[in-house]
Amino acid sequence: MAMQIYGDRVSGNCLKVKWTADKLGLAYVWIQTDVLQAQSRTPQFLALNPAGQVPMVVLEDGRPLAQSNAIILHLAQASDLIPADAYDRARMLEWMFWEQYSHEPYIAVARFQRLLLGRPADQIERRLMERGHAALARMALQLDQTPFLVGAALSLADVALVAYTRTAHEGGFDLSAYPSVGAWVARVEAALGIAP
Amino acid sequence: MAMQIYGDRVSGNCLKVKWTADKLGLAYVWIQTDVLQAQSRTPQFLALNPAGQVPMVVLEDGRPLAQSNAIILHLAQASDLIPADAYDRARMLEWMFWEQYSHEPYIAVARFQRLLLGRPADQIERRLMERGHAALARMALQLDQTPFLVGAALSLADVALVAYTRTAHEGGFDLSAYPSVGAWVARVEAALGIAP
Repeated sequence: MAMQIYGDRVSGNCLKVKWTADKLGLAYVWIQTDVLQAQSRTPQFLALNPAGQVPMVVLEDGRPLAQSNAIILHLAQASDLIPADAYDRARMLEWMFWEQYSHEPYIAVARFQRLLLGRPADQIERRLMERGHAALARMALQLDQTPFLVGAALSLADVALVAYTRTAHEGGFDLSAYPSVGAWVARVEAALGIAP
Repeated sequence: MAMQIYGDRVSGNCLKVKWTADKLGLAYVWIQTDVLQAQSRTPQFLALNPAGQVPMVVLEDGRPLAQSNAIILHLAQASDLIPADAYDRARMLEWMFWEQYSHEPYIAVARFQRLLLGRPADQIERRLMERGHAALARMALQLDQTPFLVGAALSLADVALVAYTRTAHEGGFDLSAYPSVGAWVARVEAALGIAP
């Protein structure tokens, strides 16, 4: 049985899994799961992932796995999306944990409120915007120096971070203030074969 | 040069690093870094970790590494704190990413507001408490079935999750409603040699 990916195409977290599977040439069935319609809260879904979150995959052997970054680390094991050097691998993980803690909760949430809930710009909490800009500035510090987040080569850190950075403008963040970040988005999209 | 751990002893995220280093018998120097005093925002600190967050370690070779879960994954590589089985390893990572996204932002933040900012119980945002309880209920579902989060053996998932679960009462969460979680806290404290 091919791997099943339960995901919502508007979710950057879900797209990370799709891009990684596509990049690695893995076979899968995409099961569109609409979070706003509570399709991740059905008894059938909760039996597979009690956290009620997408993305969630059911692996070829029928076992479930959740959390976008845990899924892509599993799918990409032993591929060149994970650096061979131990310190580079640790830095990749640093970026991936930072993404879920200090980037997604601001940049993805601002986008969600504007794009999907239709909230006007002046009703987005100021703290979201300030911390989102701090996250972009921190990425720029690195990307002023290296083409990818962990140096010269594409890694899962780029897959994880590009997901919501490439749609940051939909949350009101103007990437033209961070030229090295904008150039990196284009570079990662090209490497992953994602249409801009 | 021994590894340096920049951390604050009141922070569960920082204690994860200390416990892992202690369990593995690694030599280190603890550099107490008071976040409320902005000691993680000095130019010297920001040069090592532009995110301005603790814990942060400077490895023996002088290179920095941040993000609690990335640090403990690096320190514990090739130890039995990381399961040898690929699926168990993926589940461990699932718990660790879930911890930073769906547990810490509620359970640690409620504790921070009550214990460190002195805010009274009725001024803690209701959403923090609801989501904190949802996190504890999700852990209980697993720990009703297995002694540790990834089955029969202690792993970094337990180290990561015990950090703020063991002090959840300081944020107003009564663990007696989750007996399997309370028993697991004692089990992990014993395995790590932490005084209850």
